Amino acid sequence: MERENINTAAETLSPEVLQKINAYWRATNYLSVGQMYLWDNPLMRQPLKPEHIKPMLLGHWGTTPGQNFIYIHLNRIIKKHDLDMIYISGPGHGGPAIVGNVYLEGTYSEVYPNISQDEEGLQKLFKQFSFPGGIPSHVSPECPGSIHEGGELGYSLSHAFGAVFDNPDLIVACVVGDGEAETGPLATAWHSNKFLNPVTDGVVLPILHLNGYKIANPAVLARISSEELEQLFKGYGWKPYLIEGDNPMEMHQIMAQLMDKVIEEIKAIKNNAVENTVAERPIWPMIILKSPKGWTGPKFVDGLPVEGTFRSHQVPITGPTSNPEHLKQLEDWLKSYKPEELFNEQGHFLQELQDLAPKGNKRMGANPHANGGLLLKELRLPDFRNYGFEQKERGETGPGDTKILGKFIRDVMLENKEQRNFRLFGPDETLSNKLNAVFEVTNRQWEAPIIETDEFLKKDGRVIEMLSEHQCEGWLEGYLLTGRHGLFNCYEAFIHIIDSMFNQHAKWLKVTAELPWRRKIASLNILLASHVWRQDHNGFTHQDPGFFDVVMNKKASVIRVYLPPDANCLLSVMDHCFRSEHYVNVVVAGKHPAPQWLSMEEAVIHCTKGIGIWTWASNDKDSEPDVVMACAGDVPTLETLAAVSILREKLPNLKIRVVNVVDLMKLQSEKAHPHGLNDADFDMLFTKTKPVIFAFHGYPWLIHRLTYNRSNHINLHVRGYKEEGTITTAFDMTVLNDMDRFHLVQDVLDRLPNLGDEVAYLKQEMQDKLIEHNYYIRKNGVDMPEIRNWEWKG
Amino acid sequence: MERENINTAAETLSPEVLQKINAYWRATNYLSVGQMYLWDNPLMRQPLKPEHIKPMLLGHWGTTPGQNFIYIHLNRIIKKHDLDMIYISGPGHGGPAIVGNVYLEGTYSEVYPNISQDEEGLQKLFKQFSFPGGIPSHVSPECPGSIHEGGELGYSLSHAFGAVFDNPDLIVACVVGDGEAETGPLATAWHSNKFLNPVTDGVVLPILHLNGYKIANPAVLARISSEELEQLFKGYGWKPYLIEGDNPMEMHQIMAQLMDKVIEEIKAIKNNAVENTVAERPIWPMIILKSPKGWTGPKFVDGLPVEGTFRSHQVPITGPTSNPEHLKQLEDWLKSYKPEELFNEQGHFLQELQDLAPKGNKRMGANPHANGGLLLKELRLPDFRNYGFEQKERGETGPGDTKILGKFIRDVMLENKEQRNFRLFGPDETLSNKLNAVFEVTNRQWEAPIIETDEFLKKDGRVIEMLSEHQCEGWLEGYLLTGRHGLFNCYEAFIHIIDSMFNQHAKWLKVTAELPWRRKIASLNILLASHVWRQDHNGFTHQDPGFFDVVMNKKASVIRVYLPPDANCLLSVMDHCFRSEHYVNVVVAGKHPAPQWLSMEEAVIHCTKGIGIWTWASNDKDSEPDVVMACAGDVPTLETLAAVSILREKLPNLKIRVVNVVDLMKLQSEKAHPHGLNDADFDMLFTKTKPVIFAFHGYPWLIHRLTYNRSNHINLHVRGYKEEGTITTAFDMTVLNDMDRFHLVQDVLDRLPNLGDEVAYLKQEMQDKLIEHNYYIRKNGVDMPEIRNWEWKG
Repeated sequence: MERENINTAAETLSPEVLQKINAYWRATNYLSVGQMYLWDNPLMRQPLKPEHIKPMLLGHWGTTPGQNFIYIHLNRIIKKHDLDMIYISGPGHGGPAIVGNVYLEGTYSEVYPNISQDEEGLQKLFKQFSFPGGIPSHVSPECPGSIHEGGELGYSLSHAFGAVFDNPDLIVACVVGDGEAETGPLATAWHSNKFLNPVTDGVVLPILHLNGYKIANPAVLARISSEELEQLFKGYGWKPYLIEGDNPMEMHQIMAQLMDKVIEEIKAIKNNAVENTVAERPIWPMIILKSPKGWTGPKFVDGLPVEGTFRSHQVPITGPTSNPEHLKQLEDWLKSYKPEELFNEQGHFLQELQDLAPKGNKRMGANPHANGGLLLKELRLPDFRNYGFEQKERGETGPGDTKILGKFIRDVMLENKEQRNFRLFGPDETLSNKLNAVFEVTNRQWEAPIIETDEFLKKDGRVIEMLSEHQCEGWLEGYLLTGRHGLFNCYEAFIHIIDSMFNQHAKWLKVTAELPWRRKIASLNILLASHVWRQDHNGFTHQDPGFFDVVMNKKASVIRVYLPPDANCLLSVMDHCFRSEHYVNVVVAGKHPAPQWLSMEEAVIHCTKGIGIWTWASNDKDSEPDVVMACAGDVPTLETLAAVSILREKLPNLKIRVVNVVDLMKLQSEKAHPHGLNDADFDMLFTKTKPVIFAFHGYPWLIHRLTYNRSNHINLHVRGYKEEGTITTAFDMTVLNDMDRFHLVQDVLDRLPNLGDEVAYLKQEMQDKLIEHNYYIRKNGVDMPEIRNWEWKG
Repeated sequence: MERENINTAAETLSPEVLQKINAYWRATNYLSVGQMYLWDNPLMRQPLKPEHIKPMLLGHWGTTPGQNFIYIHLNRIIKKHDLDMIYISGPGHGGPAIVGNVYLEGTYSEVYPNISQDEEGLQKLFKQFSFPGGIPSHVSPECPGSIHEGGELGYSLSHAFGAVFDNPDLIVACVVGDGEAETGPLATAWHSNKFLNPVTDGVVLPILHLNGYKIANPAVLARISSEELEQLFKGYGWKPYLIEGDNPMEMHQIMAQLMDKVIEEIKAIKNNAVENTVAERPIWPMIILKSPKGWTGPKFVDGLPVEGTFRSHQVPITGPTSNPEHLKQLEDWLKSYKPEELFNEQGHFLQELQDLAPKGNKRMGANPHANGGLLLKELRLPDFRNYGFEQKERGETGPGDTKILGKFIRDVMLENKEQRNFRLFGPDETLSNKLNAVFEVTNRQWEAPIIETDEFLKKDGRVIEMLSEHQCEGWLEGYLLTGRHGLFNCYEAFIHIIDSMFNQHAKWLKVTAELPWRRKIASLNILLASHVWRQDHNGFTHQDPGFFDVVMNKKASVIRVYLPPDANCLLSVMDHCFRSEHYVNVVVAGKHPAPQWLSMEEAVIHCTKGIGIWTWASNDKDSEPDVVMACAGDVPTLETLAAVSILREKLPNLKIRVVNVVDLMKLQSEKAHPHGLNDADFDMLFTKTKPVIFAFHGYPWLIHRLTYNRSNHINLHVRGYKEEGTITTAFDMTVLNDMDRFHLVQDVLDRLPNLGDEVAYLKQEMQDKLIEHNYYIRKNGVDMPEIRNWEWKG
């Protein structure tokens, strides 16, 4: 690796600066240990006693000194080169490191005046850490400067790249722990460099921190030869620099020199890219820092080695309140940082040391990119009404709902071309999901070689596609967290790949919404196409509409789920999503030609209400219906209307009400979700006593979960996907899951008071239709003509 | 790369063999195209007409010829070296390739006699592909020889490694598509070589298939320089061999030579490892095959290039029934393989060609490792009753439920040491989850260097830990699919990382259970410790009990969820899980010291029933209770019993029934799940009219979803996790989510008919307790003494 190029003899730092930098580092390490241990005596001005120790000892020491070391050296180059930089802490458990640094640079006390720059503030800073009612052990939303908590590992690099897309002057220093480096998402995120434009995007400076151990095991990357390590990162397309050692003074000199070097290389690459139109993908520098786990911590505890081993992972000295030897050891450890040399009489960090940190918004804790809402500009949105499908008659077949949406998104791209604050992400499914129109105005951003037969690839583009749902989600999150807008389009079944990322983002939104100094960011918009009911090409593995069930578990204040039944509704919903802030919006839409139900005006009204009676499909005018036929989702809506057609033709006296649900949250009580209907409104729609046959896009139980406390719940009968399927037609899929028109008619008939022979006959007819269908499709491979050619007759 | 070492002049294959191998390849390609297109005229004995074409053209041609090429060359070395080998197809969409090969080697017709080795069989083989009622487009469970469908990409290498652990004579040839290679899970799976023991495990031969494109985009690994490609895989610790070209005859020679070479290297490594105790991790060979996407397919269609481009991805010629030019092109394409030279008059594959394939169980389609149930041996299980916690009094604090379980698992390890068919997988959490006892008898298997300060690491061990939930899950799945047993232990919140893998495995189980020739495999056992209520060290990011909600959406016949309330119940449940077959068992357990409720005898009875009244905690003897206090999970059970204590002390006349739920599926109707209670039994437990206060481990809505159609549902009030939390005590977590004893008492009081001042006073007292708690914990950081020292008094 490029280790030999570092001249360890050269003295980048003058003796005085070196002393100061080391003093700063001692201060951060002291603050980290203080946060883990000290209840009182924050400046160690008295001999340490058991009553000075916190009742619960929590935190993760192992990663902390290394991160403190990195942070200080980043401070130095920010000042020296006047950089715009934020810090992402992959090993999120190093919370005390970042909190301590943000405190020393002054940001923390500006955001939280209670945690003041004096002895009292120090005591509060220490006490609040990992304390009930205080702050968590990660680099959580409460920590200024953080866009990445890191409680769940794997996404630091993806967030870092998302943050620098379209931020050409921003550098994200991204510390990747050697534990996190073993995760799948992180292992593929190194390839993000194939998507980064050196002119229009910023720079990620990865710092792989090898301290050797995870919780109890060595880390894989810390136990391969340095040849393999070098090859791996060169193979990933980086220029790795290794810095290794445990002597602080030597390490400061080497790190300072290395930091200067990588910043110069970064500048050279960017200048070169701006001045020349460079064809080759640049090879960006990265740093591999090998330092002992728990560096500067106790070397041995109870006779066992601690520094440099897995025993440093959490709290290295466990019994200071009960074990006098431990207490002494802790006291020695704390005093080894010489706090008396670092803080003045009042407990304020010495000004000459604080001056090493950048000023104002250049401080990484205060950089507005890390509080993205500060930088958020609303999207310029064309009028979505102009993109609508103009139906000549109700039920006319449209070209595919997402295909129509594609034109709207194309023009969103266009309108925000100058602002450069909107991007589309997807795992190579943008064309498959029929959003083709976007490629009329932009391309996929791609920095690797492009050859003649490629389509829609350019070095500059607003679409980014990699076959990794983790990357798409992580990039978009990073993009949003730094104040921009975007959309992730994905096959419905495979959105489960990022269930846990969604969970963490929703948690982040929930907590940031409660912090007054955090500004709201744009919503995370997820468009699920290629859904469960249309698996003509794929089959059972591609059938899973259960993402809703994951989404619904998160705080109602941050989640929204929409099931537009046709293209005009989809347009209205997406426009709303693009305008919204601080939600996760999940939208499911079809991509295949499908019937269109509502005019644009009707669609806007319907979507604004989120749920409503389709009077044109109902015949219950001015009276209570005999049955409510409810539906949510494009295919369920089609089957419901087909069933209604049959019923209205065969049993013209039966009064049917059709209710369509776009906004799934409407079904919940207004106590459970801000969109929820109150009971009176719900009863108005669904009646208090009449049978409700509900055809649902997802797993049927979700509807019961949402409506269990409604007065008419007992009469609610839900059809949905119940894990039956294979490669087949959409209609056959509904048959396999008992949600087709013939089953729905039977469901209605089963719930009617006996209406005599007519009903019995119709029931038999429906049964015959199903047999006929099964015979026909298995013989011919396509649906029977009456299904293929079915048309709504209003 | 090692490309130069291949002597392209050398002729490994004699001219005759070369011709035969190429003929075999033509046959497989022909069968692949036939499956995509042909409805009739399977041997092309008549001029091709529109009516010979299938009504829906489906499938993925792009990957297919390359996989056919690989399969044939694997056949050759299996025969030549008498290998025991199975094939994993990462690009699962190459279904026609594997189905065609398994047909030609004869296995397919043995499993499905209807698909016979003649013209009629060929026609059926073609028609059934991607046809309603037929077979899917992937290497699905219906395909003999498959343990990996590949519909969702990312897990092929993990499955391959799982398959070879403890199978020293098995080689898994694992084809990784360049699309799949971009996914996170696959990107980290290359590191599996650091965990493979060359003596006791088998070998994975990865074949990275670079055909350049995914759906519509180039693949990242196909667009980096060969230097980077080589460095990447050397960095991953492999010895990569590159084979690149498009001339079939040349490619056959090179591939044959390369295959011989890698097999010899593999044998040398294994021999060396057996004969010497080699200290260094071996560098296993791998193959990188660069071949054109859609190799041998049409070069141009409608004037656009197809072979070698993304346009080969699915069906390259789209309009043969309506476009005469397309029809002609398809005919030429099919005839280019010269079927008349490949099949005899009856349509049987020529015997001299079929003789190239291995025989009997050496055929990859017939290898019993790919139908793991054939090889499944039951676990030797010690009597779990011997590991129980012997309580002196009810409610005595145990050492931690998983800690007790650890001893049982230790002895399961021991008992099956000879069989080598049980393993424990985890993302570096086995110690954190308190299963420490296993390390008394085994170690973590680790092939990278081991240093003095490490613990429990050895080249041979029954525990495998890598900080990748994807790897743990994928390895275990591969291990189970090849007929062994295992357990995955994981933090509860982070099991969502593998939601989608769980989904796919559950789908695999569902379909294989319906195939009579597939034998049942051992259950996938998932132990979730470090659960939502015990986040003393972590906090909000580590709190998500929603995996149940994902699990419950899958077929009831393959899923089980258990919430043992104490250690003895946990032992009973795990014993049951280890004995079970073809399920996914999810078990949640605590790791911290916690009260123990049941004697071993009581626990066995309780767990066998899965749900039951705890009479010792109830005072409703011989009569209907006034209220039912139900609970599921260790912390909810504790809070429920604490609430019951308060109520029984303060309102001794109130008749309380305590119901504990171990088996969550019991709550469902017997129509919904085989474990479900019928309504009469449910009503016996929960009454028909009395209030039920249910304290649940997970999100409360799940209980409503499971019970919505029970007669007493209207009186059911559920408390559970509702996304409120931080780093704090278990008790404070329950307070934040309104599930603590004081809230539960209030919930009961709210539902009682007015009992006068006594009730009002108690309500106020509970309110005061909550205020007192909040004050105390935020001041002192620990629970108030009455919580810390609480004891059940029966």
